[in-house]
Amino acid sequence: MKNIIRNMALAALALPLAMSLSAASEHPKRQDAALEKSHPILMLTEESVVEMREAAGSVPRFDAAVAQLIAEADAAVERELCVPVPKDGGGGYTHEMHKQNYYDMYNCGVAWQLTGDERYAEKTKEIMYAYAEMYPGLGYHPLGLSSVPGKIFWQTLNESVWLVHTSVAYDCIRDWLTEKDRRHLEKNLFRPVAEFIMDGTPDNRANNVTFNKMHNHGTWATAAVGMMAIAMDDDDLLDKALYGSDETGKNGGFIMQLDRLFSPDGYFTEGAYYQRYAIWPFVTFAQCIDHYRPELEIFSYRDGIIVKAVEALLQMAYDGEFFRFNDALEKGYDAQELIYAVDIAYNADRSRKDLLSIARDSQDRVLVSDAGYAVAKDIQDGQAEPFELKSLLFRDGADGNQGGFVVMRSPREDQNSAVTFKATSHGLSHGHYDKLTFAYYDNGHEIITDYGAARFINIEAKYSGHYTAENKTYAMTTIAHNTLVADCRSHFDGKIKVSSLHWPQMMWADLGKKAVQTVSAVDTAAIPGVRMQRVITYADVPFLEYPLIMDLMKAESAQEHVYDYPVHYNGHEISLSVPYEKALDVMRPLGKEDGYRHLWVEAQAHGGDGVTSYTWMTGDRMYTISTATTPQTEIFIVRTGADDPNFNLRSEPGYVLRENGRSSHTFASCIETHGRYDMQVEQSANLVHSCKGVKVLHDDGDLTVVEYEFINGHSVVLACCLRATSPQERHSVTLPDGTTLTWTGAVSVTCR
Amino acid sequence: MKNIIRNMALAALALPLAMSLSAASEHPKRQDAALEKSHPILMLTEESVVEMREAAGSVPRFDAAVAQLIAEADAAVERELCVPVPKDGGGGYTHEMHKQNYYDMYNCGVAWQLTGDERYAEKTKEIMYAYAEMYPGLGYHPLGLSSVPGKIFWQTLNESVWLVHTSVAYDCIRDWLTEKDRRHLEKNLFRPVAEFIMDGTPDNRANNVTFNKMHNHGTWATAAVGMMAIAMDDDDLLDKALYGSDETGKNGGFIMQLDRLFSPDGYFTEGAYYQRYAIWPFVTFAQCIDHYRPELEIFSYRDGIIVKAVEALLQMAYDGEFFRFNDALEKGYDAQELIYAVDIAYNADRSRKDLLSIARDSQDRVLVSDAGYAVAKDIQDGQAEPFELKSLLFRDGADGNQGGFVVMRSPREDQNSAVTFKATSHGLSHGHYDKLTFAYYDNGHEIITDYGAARFINIEAKYSGHYTAENKTYAMTTIAHNTLVADCRSHFDGKIKVSSLHWPQMMWADLGKKAVQTVSAVDTAAIPGVRMQRVITYADVPFLEYPLIMDLMKAESAQEHVYDYPVHYNGHEISLSVPYEKALDVMRPLGKEDGYRHLWVEAQAHGGDGVTSYTWMTGDRMYTISTATTPQTEIFIVRTGADDPNFNLRSEPGYVLRENGRSSHTFASCIETHGRYDMQVEQSANLVHSCKGVKVLHDDGDLTVVEYEFINGHSVVLACCLRATSPQERHSVTLPDGTTLTWTGAVSVTCR
Repeated sequence: MKNIIRNMALAALALPLAMSLSAASEHPKRQDAALEKSHPILMLTEESVVEMREAAGSVPRFDAAVAQLIAEADAAVERELCVPVPKDGGGGYTHEMHKQNYYDMYNCGVAWQLTGDERYAEKTKEIMYAYAEMYPGLGYHPLGLSSVPGKIFWQTLNESVWLVHTSVAYDCIRDWLTEKDRRHLEKNLFRPVAEFIMDGTPDNRANNVTFNKMHNHGTWATAAVGMMAIAMDDDDLLDKALYGSDETGKNGGFIMQLDRLFSPDGYFTEGAYYQRYAIWPFVTFAQCIDHYRPELEIFSYRDGIIVKAVEALLQMAYDGEFFRFNDALEKGYDAQELIYAVDIAYNADRSRKDLLSIARDSQDRVLVSDAGYAVAKDIQDGQAEPFELKSLLFRDGADGNQGGFVVMRSPREDQNSAVTFKATSHGLSHGHYDKLTFAYYDNGHEIITDYGAARFINIEAKYSGHYTAENKTYAMTTIAHNTLVADCRSHFDGKIKVSSLHWPQMMWADLGKKAVQTVSAVDTAAIPGVRMQRVITYADVPFLEYPLIMDLMKAESAQEHVYDYPVHYNGHEISLSVPYEKALDVMRPLGKEDGYRHLWVEAQAHGGDGVTSYTWMTGDRMYTISTATTPQTEIFIVRTGADDPNFNLRSEPGYVLRENGRSSHTFASCIETHGRYDMQVEQSANLVHSCKGVKVLHDDGDLTVVEYEFINGHSVVLACCLRATSPQERHSVTLPDGTTLTWTGAVSVTCR
Repeated sequence: MKNIIRNMALAALALPLAMSLSAASEHPKRQDAALEKSHPILMLTEESVVEMREAAGSVPRFDAAVAQLIAEADAAVERELCVPVPKDGGGGYTHEMHKQNYYDMYNCGVAWQLTGDERYAEKTKEIMYAYAEMYPGLGYHPLGLSSVPGKIFWQTLNESVWLVHTSVAYDCIRDWLTEKDRRHLEKNLFRPVAEFIMDGTPDNRANNVTFNKMHNHGTWATAAVGMMAIAMDDDDLLDKALYGSDETGKNGGFIMQLDRLFSPDGYFTEGAYYQRYAIWPFVTFAQCIDHYRPELEIFSYRDGIIVKAVEALLQMAYDGEFFRFNDALEKGYDAQELIYAVDIAYNADRSRKDLLSIARDSQDRVLVSDAGYAVAKDIQDGQAEPFELKSLLFRDGADGNQGGFVVMRSPREDQNSAVTFKATSHGLSHGHYDKLTFAYYDNGHEIITDYGAARFINIEAKYSGHYTAENKTYAMTTIAHNTLVADCRSHFDGKIKVSSLHWPQMMWADLGKKAVQTVSAVDTAAIPGVRMQRVITYADVPFLEYPLIMDLMKAESAQEHVYDYPVHYNGHEISLSVPYEKALDVMRPLGKEDGYRHLWVEAQAHGGDGVTSYTWMTGDRMYTISTATTPQTEIFIVRTGADDPNFNLRSEPGYVLRENGRSSHTFASCIETHGRYDMQVEQSANLVHSCKGVKVLHDDGDLTVVEYEFINGHSVVLACCLRATSPQERHSVTLPDGTTLTWTGAVSVTCR
């Protein structure tokens, strides 16, 4: 359908009708008539430009985006030409100037298309000529800090981003340039840069390795080369971008990246934060391919993997902010990459009206491209529909068999919550040692938290904005997460090479926004000699104010270990059900081991005989975790910040339960969400938790039964078969009171 | 004008026209015709009820308020009657039940007026009869915890609130009741309760003292008695409420409370947080007086002090939240008291269209009263105008001569900021030892903070929701504030009796939203033998991104002291311009003295030779305080939480500069607001502060000159005459470089 429209528009342009367009909306003319395709054809198309020009003033959201781009293009026209000899690293003068230049070329190129004002085309050409003057004489960047060094920038990654932008600019002014200009620029600049990114130099083939690599840096490289190939009408070069530098499609290229870098569910192995970054070259290059080689049906490739990846990313968010796990800072739907992702995904699949509500409600601009125009126009026409957040399993691994990441949303319409469970593979260099960790979001807040990354982007005083040392010594360690730690050592001893070889096995993920959702995974590699299995069940319980999270973390080993069960939270301590000793006039760290040295011990206690409950407050609600304990259980209330000489860590609290000298142990907990604290009228209700007991009634072989006791004689009995089972299989255990409990399938929840 | 409208409405009711009202909107009929005034006349009036009934369905904001009230009245009708024998304190069963009962009576009474549905009137009567049965037999409340005990509640304050609500309920159903009902209820319940609140018992006259006291508890008492007096048409009792129990107007009563409890600028001495609470009975009783005795022109009394007090309260806020000082938690325009205050103030002065925007934008409901109806209707009619936040001085003390509280708003339209300066009297039992403290709010955040109160209202686990011990041992102490501490001891040694006798002298407050705003005050009593004067100047500086705060804190003494200059902030440490030693594996408190024992020392340093700059980040901006220091200056980065056995303190950071063994010292600082940290596109700018030097060029006698040096050769010279001076008086000093600086008036700011 889209192609038909395109062809009709092209036909119209060829007819005298097109001649009747006013000067203001006249399309910049091609200056010669080769056989190649019409330009622009990357982010904009010849026909979309006509449509946008005609629509000027009638779609305010798009008009605003155009106005902003024109303002930036005007500033670029005013800016004195400056193409400095490369010298500085990220943040430095030459680095930032070269970034400015590619934005200037991009904005001016697009502005030329939209206005027909030659000042913009001239400026674009001027900058390109200056680069064509300098580039042939450049060697490797002098900084020498990257193993994949560029020429204009300290690393080739930035050079790829430069070429992505420059290719769009060239595509926009190409038909305005003379044949001589084109030959000059392609020969002295565009082709050499593309070839450098693709092949490197005879002395250093690192770029070629990256170009063919199954890594998001490789995607930037293929996108850059491929987009410039399209801009130059070089089908052979485009094939290299699509199918690898050997053009076989077996050793690299964008298509193979589509095959390997996302799981069948659209999950990118580094997690949501880097999926946001990785998605950018994917959607951008795909948009250009779809314009240039529509016959490839790139957006249908691999069952629509590109839109699926955008969808997965949008689903991995709470209140518009991406779930924080692995190396992650606060980013959300308003990040610039998401504007590309949402606009282009909608342009590719106009049936996804729910994407329009993301663009309308969570993003402050649209792209100045045909995708952005489609989004703005259809929002304007009232086509937006709500985006529904679901409970989902995202399998990890190209074949979907490397564990997964699970989201469980509240079964209650009136509650905005999410429980996340991470049982993925390591996640490349940004992965953390946190097998089977979980987190909880509720009422607009992070409740049970993941520290994310120890980094202050762009802040010179904080290790020049890079990941700080504490990212490795704390943020990546196991104790920094909400999962099992044995003997105070991180999973895989914090060794990425080992961790990268293993992943947990998903046992089940029974989801959907329904009364009982449950997920389980097993890991046997993270802790040598220990099999750990976690079962997290999120259930609406009739006698509780909000759904209950029930957590079983079972460790089995032949040797004795110290098992720690940390819960990091956001909020203020309200109460612990056992007496505790607060650090009053001296405070010391929890230990010297992996991550432990960064935790101050604010208070210590011993577990209650049967159960220990810990309550904190976040926003206007209370949260209580109640865990089966004995007086031998050690309890620590901790806070980050020890052994942190440069204030690189945020000050955040945590709660740690410790079982000493156990070969096997099951941490059985439940997390209540309760209470209302209304400061407006100073009224409150249900501030005290309801759980009075957690009893592991049976924990033998594959069958575990836990009873959670609540006030007023209520209880919840959770029964699990930990091994693979069928929904029909019956399980039966004799409980301590002599009664027999029978259930079918993996998990049974009985409330009374 | 209002009275004319009222009289016209009454006239209309007397005409046959009124007879044509449909049954649904018919006004409940009086059952006998005494000479007393028509009821209702407290919060509702007979004529406003007619108007509201007729307008049903046409003013959605009011309809919503009515619907909510009716829903609550319906719940009350369903509720089984329960008037328990008093037993529990706040939060306990009988306490909460008696609160529920007064809300039920109130809601049912008003619902009867609005619907004419007799179920509501019956329910109101039923509850009243139950109280009339029980009350005569009650002695003092058994809890015995209050020095001013009640009968229904543990303290008389709650009994006054009970009577305020009950009087409105009685006013609403009075004309529906038979003469016999009225006699019975007045004799056995209303009059005894009113007399108890006014006079106490022969054994305990504490209530009489409170009733006549210049204290907001006294206002609750006069309002309660006065409102019931109006409901009973008892003019003699009303006179006692207005003019004191001796009716002289010289020893108590509401009118005298209006004279004494607010300063001429409408400031209530306990500060914004308690002004919010104190305003409630003032506006409520005034509304009733205005209905019943319009000839008193109560809203014009003392130059319109009631509306002035509402205005002062609204001005003492940032982003709709009240400035935090003295005992204060988070409260703002949406607090229920403010709904009363804003609605009634607007009803009293319909020219204040700016109050409508507060009601519209910051409050989620209106009162179901003629005031609430007026607000809802006029918002509906599009009459709301913006509420303008100003730079203001609020003088403290009934005569305005006990110091004051100052707010300076940004001179820049594009910046939402406020600098506050507190030089008030102690502030009764909720005051803190913080003479000349300041705070800073910017970009939607508290930046330089005031701890406020150590309290978790309604949270049983935190000292039953009362002020915790740490309120006195930390929150009230001087080191918890942003002002001068000498020898680690709180102002007035933390003795309220002494502190209550003294207040600072305001030297000047040159305000207005203009390029240079400046304020100064002197205190000679808070620290024995030390005169301290602070000058805070907020100035727009052409070469800085945001206006600059310049702070001079000058201490003069004949004896040597240790002077501490603490700055409590909200955010994360970014950099200190001198090397520091972070507490790595052991952390200890700052000291053992007043408040000091609650501060962990996270890091220590020595001052730079000339200047020390400390930068933190809050939201997406940076804040840097640069202070004139020497290598002898000691620096501490601290965090609350030491010696806090029950986690009663929030974990918050601070920065302390210490000068040892000085008799006199001037802390000269400036606070820059700078930078932009845009995570959406990962761009940032101006993250590094600009101040490179702070030099006290002259500090002798009354004249002080400080030069703040910035990058690029810029500087700001601040010259002050610290004593009282005239705008015309010339001052002149010879600077170290031999040049002479001359200026006129108190403060001169020169940027170059």
